Amino acid sequence: MTVKNAFYAQSGGVTAVINASAAGVIETARQHPDRIGKVFAGRNGIIGALTEDLIDTSLESAENIAALRHTPSGAFGSCRYKLKSLEANRAEYERLIEVFKAHNIGYFFYNGGGDSADTCLKVSQLAETMGYPIQAIHVPKTVDNDLPITDCCPGFGSVAKYVATSIREAGFDVASMGATSTKVFILEVMGRHAGWITAACGLASEGEGQPPHILLFPEVQFDQAKFLARVDECVKTYGYCVIGVSEGIKNSDGKFLSETGLTDAFGHAQLGGVAPTVAKLVKDALGYKYHWAVADYLQRAARHIASKVDVEQAYALGQAAVNIALQGKNSVMPAIRRLQDAPYQWDIIEAPLKDVANVEKFMPRDFITEDGFHITDACRTYLSPLIQGEDYPPFKNGLPDYVRLGNHSIERKLPPFSV
Amino acid sequence: MTVKNAFYAQSGGVTAVINASAAGVIETARQHPDRIGKVFAGRNGIIGALTEDLIDTSLESAENIAALRHTPSGAFGSCRYKLKSLEANRAEYERLIEVFKAHNIGYFFYNGGGDSADTCLKVSQLAETMGYPIQAIHVPKTVDNDLPITDCCPGFGSVAKYVATSIREAGFDVASMGATSTKVFILEVMGRHAGWITAACGLASEGEGQPPHILLFPEVQFDQAKFLARVDECVKTYGYCVIGVSEGIKNSDGKFLSETGLTDAFGHAQLGGVAPTVAKLVKDALGYKYHWAVADYLQRAARHIASKVDVEQAYALGQAAVNIALQGKNSVMPAIRRLQDAPYQWDIIEAPLKDVANVEKFMPRDFITEDGFHITDACRTYLSPLIQGEDYPPFKNGLPDYVRLGNHSIERKLPPFSV
Repeated sequence: MTVKNAFYAQSGGVTAVINASAAGVIETARQHPDRIGKVFAGRNGIIGALTEDLIDTSLESAENIAALRHTPSGAFGSCRYKLKSLEANRAEYERLIEVFKAHNIGYFFYNGGGDSADTCLKVSQLAETMGYPIQAIHVPKTVDNDLPITDCCPGFGSVAKYVATSIREAGFDVASMGATSTKVFILEVMGRHAGWITAACGLASEGEGQPPHILLFPEVQFDQAKFLARVDECVKTYGYCVIGVSEGIKNSDGKFLSETGLTDAFGHAQLGGVAPTVAKLVKDALGYKYHWAVADYLQRAARHIASKVDVEQAYALGQAAVNIALQGKNSVMPAIRRLQDAPYQWDIIEAPLKDVANVEKFMPRDFITEDGFHITDACRTYLSPLIQGEDYPPFKNGLPDYVRLGNHSIERKLPPFSV
Repeated sequence: MTVKNAFYAQSGGVTAVINASAAGVIETARQHPDRIGKVFAGRNGIIGALTEDLIDTSLESAENIAALRHTPSGAFGSCRYKLKSLEANRAEYERLIEVFKAHNIGYFFYNGGGDSADTCLKVSQLAETMGYPIQAIHVPKTVDNDLPITDCCPGFGSVAKYVATSIREAGFDVASMGATSTKVFILEVMGRHAGWITAACGLASEGEGQPPHILLFPEVQFDQAKFLARVDECVKTYGYCVIGVSEGIKNSDGKFLSETGLTDAFGHAQLGGVAPTVAKLVKDALGYKYHWAVADYLQRAARHIASKVDVEQAYALGQAAVNIALQGKNSVMPAIRRLQDAPYQWDIIEAPLKDVANVEKFMPRDFITEDGFHITDACRTYLSPLIQGEDYPPFKNGLPDYVRLGNHSIERKLPPFSV
């Protein structure tokens, strides 16, 4: 058998479980020394391939690679960098081939979301377009949960569990304070285009009157009067009102709410934060005392409250990517197929990369209630399995014990290349 | 033996473990039916006593009371309400005595921070000032960690564990992204007057270059030029910079940073949020891409990542309060005494309420490094024991299974009273 080395890299915004996929790839590759030599990780994603900045993962102990399973973030560095088309930047593709040749790389595993799937697709076509034999497999990852075909995207389930847990906890807090103090609480969550994460907040409410009472989705045009009326109704009915809001909600002009209204002394728009904007609307119109939180990176990095299902899927998809490559396949993404809702059962199928790249999956309209302010039972049936189970990291000195790898670069063989 | 009923109430901002103290009080009281009849909880703190809105906790199952130990927030409702002096509002004291008499209340347990200790002190003086025999015991609670005598305050250890965990996780995230994207991350935490929570963020950094790199304390006047220079230095040295900032930092004019700068279209000051203000300073001066988060209530409600030590102390203090009352004492607060740093050993002592009420404990200056941007080893030695151990709540449907009590009011015997 020919032994080829593998390239693995992480791309786009990192998650609580992308390193679990890395562990799946590396541990599985190590089980096949007759086929796969070393796994080189790109430092900072595809940029590491272009600049020949390759990390030799064989220098990391089995223990450290195993610890990636419980460590959030991208252990090898990630990047936001999209390859242009072959026509637009042929030099980049030629460079990739030079680097792959120089280091005997025959397997390309790229771990990312929609943009990264596009990069992976282009690399997978190098055999055809540039005559270099490569097997490119995409490992799905994105908290946005917007990749097609797969039931869900690794990273999303853990964010979902985090936001639902957090808004439940804050809801209990506000319920205690409502009589004499804070009556309205707003949690801003990620999701600029799709409301998956906002929807996950809704799981915290399991009965009439339980918070969150209102969800504001990017899919639903923000109607200020209707929203304020609903807030007032909640406060009058339940004594308080808890709101989950997507960073991406837009007003009737199609502008992001976070971009409108507040300006600094120089007239610059204020720096994001739709939660304070919504809080101010409530305060000005209704006068209720409010608090707001912006979870930002905390939500996607919260490995301490990761979903067990999510961790297992992330690892299994990394594992599957290697097994698919060992079957000689190219231009494929392993994807989760749902077999049953409750108890959740799933397996892994193979999706052609061309059907994945640049396709966004939006939330079905019937996942949002008719009034636009909450999730439906169909949405709960879809979401609930994805947050099942806890998978706590080990703790040391009272804090999660996450691993930092050595990340030793291999020696460069080629002249420098600028990206 | 005479059997008297007990009054218990929660006051001020709630925490992840104040209900653990409630469980300690109620479960211990239930063990002494020969001395303590029923425990009536004030709905919304002392307001429940004034308005005769008393919850009969004897109607709650043992299982539900036990579940309070793992449920954040104030199960009976809290309030921000401070009794005026006897001279300023004698009617309130007379009303309290009427309510106590009507319901045969001889024990008063008040669970709160500094302001609440003052309320409890005033109630404890009713015997002397108004001739009504009452034993008033204060159960300490405050995320601000600013009560005197006690080694720490229940609620603080869990916030400390939450913010240290969160900033560590976000730090791993930013480390992954720094090369091509976000270089500066800012987490805003609570603590308007004292930097205890900000200091706790520092525990996440256990070695050179580990995030957080900069802490901004309310105790240290904000020096913009020095701060920006330090941010730039961190980005140039480590590739990124993670900052923990107290909501209470002030500039050289003594103004809260969160109150300055940003205004809306009508010239109103923007709505709090020192994190976006600091982020904008960084962006304008250095141009680095940033992200920011505001934890707000998430930090004090995060029972899912509570400190085991904190939960144990909260429960033990509730238990001790009842035992102290059973010894016939009045005007006392059980307090934590540290016997040893590592491994942490503590016991409970009795603090006279007059030495507690209206006394604030600030962070010692030698807990902050000379440059004002981080914590010292002395601070670590103090803080580290308080975040030890995990005490996960049970989960159901993928989410923490917190209890909602029935909270049935007893029948009123007195005419209404307005507060």
